[in-house]
Amino acid sequence: MKKSLGVQTLAQPCPVWLVGSYDSEGKPNLATVAWGGICCSKPPCVTISLRPATHSHASILARKAFTVNVPGVAFAKQADYCGISSGRDVDKFAAAGLTAVKSDLVDAPYVDEFPLIIECRLQQTVEVGGHTQFIGEIVDVKADPGVLTEKGLPDIEKVRPMIFTPVIRTYHGIGDYLGQAFSIGKEIG
Amino acid sequence: MKKSLGVQTLAQPCPVWLVGSYDSEGKPNLATVAWGGICCSKPPCVTISLRPATHSHASILARKAFTVNVPGVAFAKQADYCGISSGRDVDKFAAAGLTAVKSDLVDAPYVDEFPLIIECRLQQTVEVGGHTQFIGEIVDVKADPGVLTEKGLPDIEKVRPMIFTPVIRTYHGIGDYLGQAFSIGKEIG
Repeated sequence: MKKSLGVQTLAQPCPVWLVGSYDSEGKPNLATVAWGGICCSKPPCVTISLRPATHSHASILARKAFTVNVPGVAFAKQADYCGISSGRDVDKFAAAGLTAVKSDLVDAPYVDEFPLIIECRLQQTVEVGGHTQFIGEIVDVKADPGVLTEKGLPDIEKVRPMIFTPVIRTYHGIGDYLGQAFSIGKEIG
Repeated sequence: MKKSLGVQTLAQPCPVWLVGSYDSEGKPNLATVAWGGICCSKPPCVTISLRPATHSHASILARKAFTVNVPGVAFAKQADYCGISSGRDVDKFAAAGLTAVKSDLVDAPYVDEFPLIIECRLQQTVEVGGHTQFIGEIVDVKADPGVLTEKGLPDIEKVRPMIFTPVIRTYHGIGDYLGQAFSIGKEIG
């Protein structure tokens, strides 16, 4: 018998991504988000949600671009810091010791130190309630050569992304390999 | 120097969720998705994306309800199977040995064997391209008592959700605890 937990954002797992944008003065900024995910294959799109009160909200609307920066677990403190502080008050890149690189494809900065980054052109926004969804068309993905497989794809065991657990508010890393998708279920069918 | 990987859905990590719905004949069905995430805090909302060709797409539009079922790693094969097969051809619940329970709150079934489930009323749909986003308002979260912490919240180390890596198409489990969010970054600020 299941226990009812009420109306809460209790989905698992959630990502930990740092959203890069330029503000109205051209200062690069980062917003840590756990509300997001891939939302379309063709064209490849990723969505992230922000409250209108955040500094990044107006920046992305104005520049119509953002980046999704995937921190490895070595950057857990920096990722958390960028979710606590506001770009109105501080230069998060400088405070966290991160380097902002201007994307050559969209009007947004990415984090040079992070293993995997996604450059997005804003496709549309969706008002869901207290959060606005920013849906970005992926115009390129960039990765550190050291995290790539022999086939040139990012190896999750080398990227080592973080996971956020809502409400309990913990971070975890990636665990054991469980199997190949579109494969291990074939024995049932 | 980062390497360009082109336009691909290479975000990490992605969830593995089974979306529950009833089809036009009242048959419970499951669609495995990795395109999704929480998208709003107030009201709590979760989004999942489906192609119009899927059997679940029409079902959710008709019933305006769905569930998000979080499989523990013990159900990796069943989760994969429900992403390979179609509810047009088979009864996925029966084939996978899973039990459909009718939600008492929304017109959709959930998976009795899974540790964590989210019941959703369809708030809106968003056409992104080849996929439609289904945004669901969370009307309840239900969990197995055995996965709850002392405070009554789902412990991710007991739920043991799965992670999907796009393009490479691998499944992984949850790894080590890294720290507390909204806390470990304070030493930077």
